[in-house]
Amino acid sequence: MSEKRPLITLTTDFGEADYFVAAVKGALLCVNPSVDIVDVTHQIPPHDVYSAAFTIMCCYRDFPRNALHVVVVDPGVGSKRRPIMVMVDGYNFIGPDNGVFSYIYQRENVNRVVHFNEPHYFHDKVAPTFHGRDIFAPLAGYVSKLVDWSKMGVEIDDPVRFSTPTPVVLSDKQIRGTVIHVDRFGNIITNISETELTPELVSANPRVRIGKFEAARLLTHFAEANPSELFAYFGSAGFLEIATPRQSAARLVEARRGLEVDVILP
Amino acid sequence: MSEKRPLITLTTDFGEADYFVAAVKGALLCVNPSVDIVDVTHQIPPHDVYSAAFTIMCCYRDFPRNALHVVVVDPGVGSKRRPIMVMVDGYNFIGPDNGVFSYIYQRENVNRVVHFNEPHYFHDKVAPTFHGRDIFAPLAGYVSKLVDWSKMGVEIDDPVRFSTPTPVVLSDKQIRGTVIHVDRFGNIITNISETELTPELVSANPRVRIGKFEAARLLTHFAEANPSELFAYFGSAGFLEIATPRQSAARLVEARRGLEVDVILP
Amino acid sequence: MSEKRPLITLTTDFGEADYFVAAVKGALLCVNPSVDIVDVTHQIPPHDVYSAAFTIMCCYRDFPRNALHVVVVDPGVGSKRRPIMVMVDGYNFIGPDNGVFSYIYQRENVNRVVHFNEPHYFHDKVAPTFHGRDIFAPLAGYVSKLVDWSKMGVEIDDPVRFSTPTPVVLSDKQIRGTVIHVDRFGNIITNISETELTPELVSANPRVRIGKFEAARLLTHFAEANPSELFAYFGSAGFLEIATPRQSAARLVEARRGLEVDVILP
Repeated sequence: MSEKRPLITLTTDFGEADYFVAAVKGALLCVNPSVDIVDVTHQIPPHDVYSAAFTIMCCYRDFPRNALHVVVVDPGVGSKRRPIMVMVDGYNFIGPDNGVFSYIYQRENVNRVVHFNEPHYFHDKVAPTFHGRDIFAPLAGYVSKLVDWSKMGVEIDDPVRFSTPTPVVLSDKQIRGTVIHVDRFGNIITNISETELTPELVSANPRVRIGKFEAARLLTHFAEANPSELFAYFGSAGFLEIATPRQSAARLVEARRGLEVDVILP
Repeated sequence: MSEKRPLITLTTDFGEADYFVAAVKGALLCVNPSVDIVDVTHQIPPHDVYSAAFTIMCCYRDFPRNALHVVVVDPGVGSKRRPIMVMVDGYNFIGPDNGVFSYIYQRENVNRVVHFNEPHYFHDKVAPTFHGRDIFAPLAGYVSKLVDWSKMGVEIDDPVRFSTPTPVVLSDKQIRGTVIHVDRFGNIITNISETELTPELVSANPRVRIGKFEAARLLTHFAEANPSELFAYFGSAGFLEIATPRQSAARLVEARRGLEVDVILP
Repeated sequence: MSEKRPLITLTTDFGEADYFVAAVKGALLCVNPSVDIVDVTHQIPPHDVYSAAFTIMCCYRDFPRNALHVVVVDPGVGSKRRPIMVMVDGYNFIGPDNGVFSYIYQRENVNRVVHFNEPHYFHDKVAPTFHGRDIFAPLAGYVSKLVDWSKMGVEIDDPVRFSTPTPVVLSDKQIRGTVIHVDRFGNIITNISETELTPELVSANPRVRIGKFEAARLLTHFAEANPSELFAYFGSAGFLEIATPRQSAARLVEARRGLEVDVILP
């Protein structure tokens, strides 16, 4: 059996057509040539911090313990926003302090947030338009080499977080949630999980209302749905989703992030 | 020299914009952190089992012996279709039992097909919409760790296969084949190989008829073709293909999977 | 700590939808299973040797020393153009001899250019349409295993190079450069670097003229620009670029490769 190597994931809005992702990986490998790098995605819509926050939330727990998740969606590149590391049990996260880790703060016991303020661990020359290559990649390399965080930065207690709306139980007949993401198939992801919509409530056959539309059934997988039926299901990230077979449900119901979704019990 | 690590390839219709591929890789690395993962493609058209079958057929032999090829194009996810492993000399394949390995059954001496029915080797909790992460990835991890297949499932002799049409030699002047794939450049791939269209027949300058169109010449590479000439050639997967320089031949001749193609000898 | 493995990067125009990239990686791993492979991009516009030349120029120096950069954008596949390796201090490059390494010749002291003419190091059977898999991949594998170049080919002194226009200082008030690339965001990359437009000149607040348009300001990053302002900045590859926030500057000014760009000093 071969030896295990440190594991780093990358989530960016750099696309795959240009040299940007390669430059980041090269810079990382310059610091630590013995890492395994896994791409989460490089197709986050440009500057969409919310989408990046959702994406890393949906998969960080699927990785082995001690994985280091690097997220570079950074509209403020070149400005004074802080490069940070969020340390929770089992995982570390590196990225700009712009709220991209808001869901992590909500879901995990955060052990520590570090502001990397020690340029010794940056590239010698930092391009103001490419901190992914010149700041975040070297930092990830040093962290993967187990450099002590206290040499690289200082602990902070005020990381930027955007509000991550939580569902509200309005009555024993109604739960109100919010659209938090629309994926590229047009499936609508809400913030409602089994915490609110328990298996017991599910067995009562709730309906799901979104805008002027209604999903009459909560199914377990796509194959159960009728053609063009709007239906609800628990998606693979643990959230209630709304979809319609082989069409964009989001286009059909004109869904967008922030739209209210009501679960109605009979 | 470093040590060789087990090699796993991935072929899916998950796209690269969402967290899906990353979740699969994370789940795989949780079971076996010491694998090398190579993406074949994640751009199989959604649910297109035929396209996935063609794609893995075209490249599995290019990989080192003992590579494990995981193919997850799975319209029946959540239903009762079986997760299987196809074992042939030199390679193993893991995926849903939906015909995606039909070309493998046709081309190889299959040593064994295993139905993985032992949930111990699945993820603890299986999301009905994401068997790629919760069933196929862990299975691939255990196989790469050389867990004995007989602990993980049972041998079966009735895997699902779709018909893989074979060319027919109609006369010593005519071979009839079928379009089996159209690639993204619009090149048309047929099922005719050197088995039917031997080098000797090629030297007789055959014409190739498709629909109302005809490729008058069989060339060896694109640079030989005239602008907008419809021509035939043996593609890199070993099949007779029809193309036209810098245009979509498929659009020109309205080709689709299943269309007849005739090789006419003078 | 795990051991370092040889590092190979890939730059092609194969796209990611087909089996082509996988076949190249498989063929490479057949020769040397212990390499780390990093994708630069597979989205070079088909046959665009200039775009490939630009892309590899922008990132090869970001990789660790001894990385081997393989570039396969090869309109002449199947013809007699030579497969070559360019050896410079710290890096090696493998690809077709079609000018794709022109920027490397310009920027580096080239130690040696090798024409690989020894078919022993190709695949047993070479498909005339897929030298990426059957010639370049095995060659890269053997080079990564430190096979002596003189066994694999012969030194040449006439590699193909396209002209890489250099900026001209027309007067102490005017520098004339050229557009060398347009990225997928529509940002316009020129060949003007700090060599001509020194920090001292920058501090004099030059304007940049392109076609009938003018960028009035030279900024350091995007966040400083006003909405829809056409502005100039030094990009992460070290060149003067022209952009406009969240729009395609290239479409706005109808930029294309070869267009003149003038820096005007006050």
